[in-house]
Amino acid sequence: MRFARVGEPGAEKPVVVQGDALFDLTPLTADIDGAFLADPSARARVAVALADGALPRLPADDSRRFGPPIARPHALLCIGLNYAAHAAESGAASPTEPILFLKTPNTLCGPNDDLVLPPGSRKTDWEVELGVVIGAPAYRLKDPSDAWAHIAGYVLADDVSEREYQLERPGGQWSKGKISPGFTPAGPYLVTADEVDPGNLGIRSRVNGEVRQDSTTADLIFPVEFLVWHLSQYVRLEAGDLVLTGTPEGVALSGRFPYLADGDRVEVEIDGLGAQSRSVVAGTDD
Amino acid sequence: MRFARVGEPGAEKPVVVQGDALFDLTPLTADIDGAFLADPSARARVAVALADGALPRLPADDSRRFGPPIARPHALLCIGLNYAAHAAESGAASPTEPILFLKTPNTLCGPNDDLVLPPGSRKTDWEVELGVVIGAPAYRLKDPSDAWAHIAGYVLADDVSEREYQLERPGGQWSKGKISPGFTPAGPYLVTADEVDPGNLGIRSRVNGEVRQDSTTADLIFPVEFLVWHLSQYVRLEAGDLVLTGTPEGVALSGRFPYLADGDRVEVEIDGLGAQSRSVVAGTDD
Repeated sequence: MRFARVGEPGAEKPVVVQGDALFDLTPLTADIDGAFLADPSARARVAVALADGALPRLPADDSRRFGPPIARPHALLCIGLNYAAHAAESGAASPTEPILFLKTPNTLCGPNDDLVLPPGSRKTDWEVELGVVIGAPAYRLKDPSDAWAHIAGYVLADDVSEREYQLERPGGQWSKGKISPGFTPAGPYLVTADEVDPGNLGIRSRVNGEVRQDSTTADLIFPVEFLVWHLSQYVRLEAGDLVLTGTPEGVALSGRFPYLADGDRVEVEIDGLGAQSRSVVAGTDD
Repeated sequence: MRFARVGEPGAEKPVVVQGDALFDLTPLTADIDGAFLADPSARARVAVALADGALPRLPADDSRRFGPPIARPHALLCIGLNYAAHAAESGAASPTEPILFLKTPNTLCGPNDDLVLPPGSRKTDWEVELGVVIGAPAYRLKDPSDAWAHIAGYVLADDVSEREYQLERPGGQWSKGKISPGFTPAGPYLVTADEVDPGNLGIRSRVNGEVRQDSTTADLIFPVEFLVWHLSQYVRLEAGDLVLTGTPEGVALSGRFPYLADGDRVEVEIDGLGAQSRSVVAGTDD
């Protein structure tokens, strides 16, 4: 099952997607949030309502904006250097356990929203990533195989990163380069876990039509179930939380490509999860 | 004005505090949250309601639990190594600009709740800190002096830290050691900004009655208004967000004191913001 949220920023309405058709979910839930995602009977209720014709179909509208496919989560947890070739291009060794950093949830935005460069930014970079959305809360899971029952579904995301803010600041903490407004485009869809094999998905990015990243989630050093289990040893994962699983090689940090600039177009995609296309716009302090 | 939240975890009720008396705020607001804190007329409405006797006084109850004095915020932003003597005891140079890391908001707990050590943890440490609560949202403030208008008030907090998880893991990111459940005791009070000079507050911690930290916020390398201005250059601060400003010297990481163990008692306090006292309890799986 595919869910999405459509409408203007901050006023998105939840929908369920069938082919090209969008059906209004508001008769069943106010949002695609933790409560909805943690409810084990939610998908069955949606299926029944669809079969009964109880969910109004939205009129076709090619200009409709998609927002992030989940409500603002409690936490946005990110894994660094989780593809060996990306670790190498970043000048780092492959990690022996997952590296965790956090983004602020208000970085989430729609899949095709303009990417506004922070005013003065010179090193804004793309990072296509597979996102895991938590269903049932998880703390100190016994085994990675237990993780599956705590995953609601998957989203496509771009972990946009300003490398000067991330890497050239005192203390070595990455978050400053990860939390500018609009730095986590997500969606268009949340695809439920029953429809996705997260271990073997093509994952790609392009800038101005040229391929930058072209890999597969089969190359994840630490796969999805291991990440959820591992994180749960440290933090209580909440329903609706979003875990980004790391990016493959092919980012500007490698030195092989220029950083993003005003007028660029960024496209990212993951097989089965949809695609994003956005314009890059120089930010100003007006 | 002093606000607090009292009741069982997850079911706290907002109150306004006058001396020893607690007055139920629910006639005016459901919680001490971003909407309440961003409302410039909220304090005036509370004052009028108090004067009119419109807020029921809670019965005296010495066993009443205090929760964190603010609702779960969108983000919990923390500054590292912001007292020179603490940077030195941590083996680090004083930073040339604020170091930012993030905690998950679900680490927030009440000021006197038991501190449950993560199962197997050997290096859990205390960090008394001045917390700044954001009122009006802030992004790219022009000048540190602009920050004052964006601060709703101040809280006492303990940035509990597991040093092995924080410092001995690949990648150098600190968050793993900062996000265990209960790792951010806060309160008992949110004291509104008009009643606090954050630049000159005594700040102390004790373990089993012995002084560990005893400093003043006058020793902050980067003062409160600078921190809010600086963070706003990177992230949009939201109403209700909590910024922890760093801890003074005197933590176990220095090597001068043992890490926390089952049965210890931790006390922290900041002049004018109240005090916390908690038992340390060894954690177990199930």
